[in-house]
Amino acid sequence: MSGNSFGKLFTVTTFGESHGPAIGCVIDGCPPGLVLSEADIQPELDRRKPGTSRHVTQRQESDTVEILSGVYQGVTTGTPIALLIRNEDQRSKDYGNIAESFRPGHADYTYWHKYGVRDPRGGGRSSARLTAPVVGAAAIAKKWLLQQYGTTFKGCMSQLGDIAVPFQSWDHVHANPFFAASDDAALIASMEEAMDQLRRDGDSIGARIDVIAQNVPVGLGQPIYDKLDADIAYAMMGINAVKGVEIGAGFDSVAQKGSEHGDELTPEGFVGNNAGGVLGGISTGQEISVSIAIKPTSSIRTPRRSIDKEGHPVMVETFGRHDPCVGIRATPIAEAMLALVLIDHALMHRAQCGDVAVSTPKLK
Amino acid sequence: MSGNSFGKLFTVTTFGESHGPAIGCVIDGCPPGLVLSEADIQPELDRRKPGTSRHVTQRQESDTVEILSGVYQGVTTGTPIALLIRNEDQRSKDYGNIAESFRPGHADYTYWHKYGVRDPRGGGRSSARLTAPVVGAAAIAKKWLLQQYGTTFKGCMSQLGDIAVPFQSWDHVHANPFFAASDDAALIASMEEAMDQLRRDGDSIGARIDVIAQNVPVGLGQPIYDKLDADIAYAMMGINAVKGVEIGAGFDSVAQKGSEHGDELTPEGFVGNNAGGVLGGISTGQEISVSIAIKPTSSIRTPRRSIDKEGHPVMVETFGRHDPCVGIRATPIAEAMLALVLIDHALMHRAQCGDVAVSTPKLK
Amino acid sequence: MSGNSFGKLFTVTTFGESHGPAIGCVIDGCPPGLVLSEADIQPELDRRKPGTSRHVTQRQESDTVEILSGVYQGVTTGTPIALLIRNEDQRSKDYGNIAESFRPGHADYTYWHKYGVRDPRGGGRSSARLTAPVVGAAAIAKKWLLQQYGTTFKGCMSQLGDIAVPFQSWDHVHANPFFAASDDAALIASMEEAMDQLRRDGDSIGARIDVIAQNVPVGLGQPIYDKLDADIAYAMMGINAVKGVEIGAGFDSVAQKGSEHGDELTPEGFVGNNAGGVLGGISTGQEISVSIAIKPTSSIRTPRRSIDKEGHPVMVETFGRHDPCVGIRATPIAEAMLALVLIDHALMHRAQCGDVAVSTPKLK
Amino acid sequence: MSGNSFGKLFTVTTFGESHGPAIGCVIDGCPPGLVLSEADIQPELDRRKPGTSRHVTQRQESDTVEILSGVYQGVTTGTPIALLIRNEDQRSKDYGNIAESFRPGHADYTYWHKYGVRDPRGGGRSSARLTAPVVGAAAIAKKWLLQQYGTTFKGCMSQLGDIAVPFQSWDHVHANPFFAASDDAALIASMEEAMDQLRRDGDSIGARIDVIAQNVPVGLGQPIYDKLDADIAYAMMGINAVKGVEIGAGFDSVAQKGSEHGDELTPEGFVGNNAGGVLGGISTGQEISVSIAIKPTSSIRTPRRSIDKEGHPVMVETFGRHDPCVGIRATPIAEAMLALVLIDHALMHRAQCGDVAVSTPKLK
Repeated sequence: MSGNSFGKLFTVTTFGESHGPAIGCVIDGCPPGLVLSEADIQPELDRRKPGTSRHVTQRQESDTVEILSGVYQGVTTGTPIALLIRNEDQRSKDYGNIAESFRPGHADYTYWHKYGVRDPRGGGRSSARLTAPVVGAAAIAKKWLLQQYGTTFKGCMSQLGDIAVPFQSWDHVHANPFFAASDDAALIASMEEAMDQLRRDGDSIGARIDVIAQNVPVGLGQPIYDKLDADIAYAMMGINAVKGVEIGAGFDSVAQKGSEHGDELTPEGFVGNNAGGVLGGISTGQEISVSIAIKPTSSIRTPRRSIDKEGHPVMVETFGRHDPCVGIRATPIAEAMLALVLIDHALMHRAQCGDVAVSTPKLK
Repeated sequence: MSGNSFGKLFTVTTFGESHGPAIGCVIDGCPPGLVLSEADIQPELDRRKPGTSRHVTQRQESDTVEILSGVYQGVTTGTPIALLIRNEDQRSKDYGNIAESFRPGHADYTYWHKYGVRDPRGGGRSSARLTAPVVGAAAIAKKWLLQQYGTTFKGCMSQLGDIAVPFQSWDHVHANPFFAASDDAALIASMEEAMDQLRRDGDSIGARIDVIAQNVPVGLGQPIYDKLDADIAYAMMGINAVKGVEIGAGFDSVAQKGSEHGDELTPEGFVGNNAGGVLGGISTGQEISVSIAIKPTSSIRTPRRSIDKEGHPVMVETFGRHDPCVGIRATPIAEAMLALVLIDHALMHRAQCGDVAVSTPKLK
Repeated sequence: MSGNSFGKLFTVTTFGESHGPAIGCVIDGCPPGLVLSEADIQPELDRRKPGTSRHVTQRQESDTVEILSGVYQGVTTGTPIALLIRNEDQRSKDYGNIAESFRPGHADYTYWHKYGVRDPRGGGRSSARLTAPVVGAAAIAKKWLLQQYGTTFKGCMSQLGDIAVPFQSWDHVHANPFFAASDDAALIASMEEAMDQLRRDGDSIGARIDVIAQNVPVGLGQPIYDKLDADIAYAMMGINAVKGVEIGAGFDSVAQKGSEHGDELTPEGFVGNNAGGVLGGISTGQEISVSIAIKPTSSIRTPRRSIDKEGHPVMVETFGRHDPCVGIRATPIAEAMLALVLIDHALMHRAQCGDVAVSTPKLK
Repeated sequence: MSGNSFGKLFTVTTFGESHGPAIGCVIDGCPPGLVLSEADIQPELDRRKPGTSRHVTQRQESDTVEILSGVYQGVTTGTPIALLIRNEDQRSKDYGNIAESFRPGHADYTYWHKYGVRDPRGGGRSSARLTAPVVGAAAIAKKWLLQQYGTTFKGCMSQLGDIAVPFQSWDHVHANPFFAASDDAALIASMEEAMDQLRRDGDSIGARIDVIAQNVPVGLGQPIYDKLDADIAYAMMGINAVKGVEIGAGFDSVAQKGSEHGDELTPEGFVGNNAGGVLGGISTGQEISVSIAIKPTSSIRTPRRSIDKEGHPVMVETFGRHDPCVGIRATPIAEAMLALVLIDHALMHRAQCGDVAVSTPKLK
């Protein structure tokens, strides 16, 4: 209610700061009877953790997760599941110079004015490190959705700065450091070069990420206002650095005519998917498709104008360990948020309509 | 909780269907002591109501609002304010042919599969008519925000199909039927012609709408996850027909570098506003700027392929009274949703941080 | 969220004041497919309405309910159901003298200090008249619970002032004006005489009400903290004038030993029901039994000391039409609140655990 | 939302089981700027911890609390505060015999049927051990309420089985092992003897606990339905083993007349406090007084009839370490719950009405 919980029935409440003793979350509402251990969660955390290539932050965190509650003899009991991740690499000295001034593009200025107090170490609570607990929670959601409906999630980077990455196949996503759905070696090389140049320049760049969910039951979404797409937009815009969200045809819809946009139906299924799998705020049973815009990392080595807490002009240059493109690690995070939205709506749906409705036959 | 309420502290719960006896809402949490009567609400409803030009639906609805509770001797009492709008022009016969089949692009298919029952008259609950109660509720929110902080809202159409509408001045918005912030007569004429052609063709078109809020206090937003921008995205994507949402630089952020995107600060204020007035999920005190993509109206006179409830192929052609561009009437709705998000966060903020923090001096 | 909604998944939001134009509610989350019309709701409203005997207020209200939404062709659609009851007998002049001073035992003083403004007509929002909408909403809940699980509700007055009413049979409850589960003519006569004397004295009296629910599925309740009994206590203490709540053995538990209180189990079922049908916050499948204490009506014709808004001493005497024992009409209200708690928990349970768990075989 | 959170704006989400690795909670919504360390929390935990006298369970737990987040340089930052308490004394073998059968009076039967799976070690999640995290959270609430309004909390045991404990002075509460507000040596001795006899008999007993809050601002409470007294009833009935709750005159109200019950006002203040500090669901500024009934401990050494998971009859006798009267340690828990209700309503009140209203002058 005060902002640090996600979801209404599968509720994830996170806590922690970038350089505090620990981060973690409490998951309330997980269905009982799910076989679960740390081994189900750790792989998802490993996909987003820092230090996996030279193109991301070199902070060393094992992100080892410990389940503190809610699981007995390897099975969820229906009671809250607490996940704990101890912070290991807290080089607070890197951040000493930013306690008194506000880094452009960061939450420093707003946290200070909202709360009158601020934990400046690594961005405190506003750090992208806080995406780890929700990725952990979403690993549980994904497992349940897969078992219940066969739902799966995929994501890729479709644009890095001005380099478009045409989609080839989901198979390629984990074969390169960018989550690119491409095996075009020249393209990947150009991305590597662009990133290396940014590092040399002390600058950063934005990215576009696409995520989908497949095998989603028809009927998820609470119109109006907790529509499935509204909650997806909420989830995605809530990820650090996201500035735009599209469902299906997204902004291309503006220039489309009704005779072109509205997806026709035949006995075999929908003919197209401009809807992105959502009509009237409710899932159609088609693939849910989402695209997000991620701004360039605000922490850069280029000196920039700012002010200190007294309002005096200062120059700010951020040292320390940063991702030159936060978009690179955003794919598993966006998948995670989508999974959390879907499990919440799945539970909400069966509350009101029962199990039967969820198994309604559906078109593809 | 079951989806038909908007906001946590200034909570608007709506009810009603397009062709039922009435639509309306209950507003819970309005601060006491606000001078209020129907005269504060009716003008906002009139801005979005049908029948105001030949380019929108010709349904005749006065949208006359009645306050049923929560106001005593012209002042809000802090108890729930119920707004009632009787439906007047329910030509249900127009919709008889769509009860058994699913109109492409509409919520027919998903409502049917979610609930197993569906009110087909005018789209039932999924009709854009249901935006009226929130526009009414937002009139109250706007009045309070104006008095409390001087906050104001503006909106315009910035693109109609492939016709871009360059911004000239907010003064022009109500001088043309499109909410265009332009007095370029040739441009307006081209929009008129495009709309007339669409009506002749029995087709429809999408639009882009921009809305802003000015004089927003610094510090609104509950990170993480009820960030101000996350809740704005939720609010906007929840409007009928919206497929994309941008805050500030939006999707342009993808190709920006960090040295370009991050808005510098000087003692005089922020140098730019790529952030769109939100950093780390909290308002900066700058203008909040939002842009949304609205898909073309799904109800068109062009015959389209679909199926009936038994899965047999049918052709669907929608007669009746429809907006050939739902985007035209979307501007006041988008403003309304933004106002509802802001008042909710204003109340949330003073719950946790008290009144004092809200009055913190701020940069522009 | 701001206090005027009841329930999380079957959410009833009420509005209205005693002497405003109308009272009513919006019910969000009702399962679709329930056959429903005003004829299902009106009888419950009639059970609590004023003017049914000389022992209750003589205010004349037909309490005629109108369904404004959420029902199509006689079946609930899963969208919000709005109920509207127009106020008919608003003799505001009766209350003119209380606008400036605070009646002892009433909410006048607290509303004034909380909101800084107050609707004094008939108690405004704090009037027991506001129990009508929840009784209406609960009629829907009762119908669904009966169909789904065979759940039924019963209630009676077990004490009127110092007159204890020993339980004989539920059959007698509607054969006397007191909801007494007794056909002891002498006892009923003594109650009539006590009430007549109170009216002559211009005084009032308290009462104890017992309510039960039968055929409740095992497994309802969200431990911890939204336990079934915690939510029942919340619901009951929220009824006007209630000062105490007991579940099962209640305060008798204080003097019981563990070997006496803990209900033993045999293959045939529980041996006793000190638990009142709830263990660990979850329903056992036994009868849910609740008892509540209702204070004497605060509006009496006996002059009493008070102060006005400026703090000056005044004498207050309440004329107008009042129940000399609000407990008399409380039985259907207490049943209603219990039904609203149970449907909410039933939906919550199947969200997390699915339909199957609800049908788990149970002991009596 | 799924039941394991308490409070809407000062939200405490707990996790953990009696014999799992750890218990704890996340507090979301704490106002920023409060000086806070473990030293503020530990004393409250010590008041309720086991092993403090021979009359309570001999389980050895230091209940050492660690703050994991939300505090920077000794001050709350407005972000979630996570509290962690490692379990130390988990003698699971004591509970081996109860995994297959249901202990009378316990949550075993209901958890099993609700979730289909159950952690039987020490009662799992249903253990009274889970009151520790809320006591920890309430220590923070108490500190803030004291600073903000001077609010203080007191509690005592007023009845042990059939031994009434007449109130003498709050000064005596911590001078005996029973939280008795009495220095009557003979009375205390009789309580000691009663407890010793129960231990010899392998039996247990109930208790009545009274708690009050002083210096509560006028105006707290959200009528209707989140009334202050309704939320207090919810909080109290949610404590393990509580079967009854009274506010003010409680069940004595039943036999009172209106001319006796309704507290008169004079310019000097209220003449009495039958209301218990709440009128119309809103605090009056008087002392809030609450009384609760606590059932006898269900875990006793006396053999009792029950069934196993297959429904076969068994005899159950509980060994291990148990409180023969759970009421003894309930006083700090009841105070804690009252504090959590009050801070939540204080924040809710200033959300809607602002800071000013909270400081409204008030009568005693």
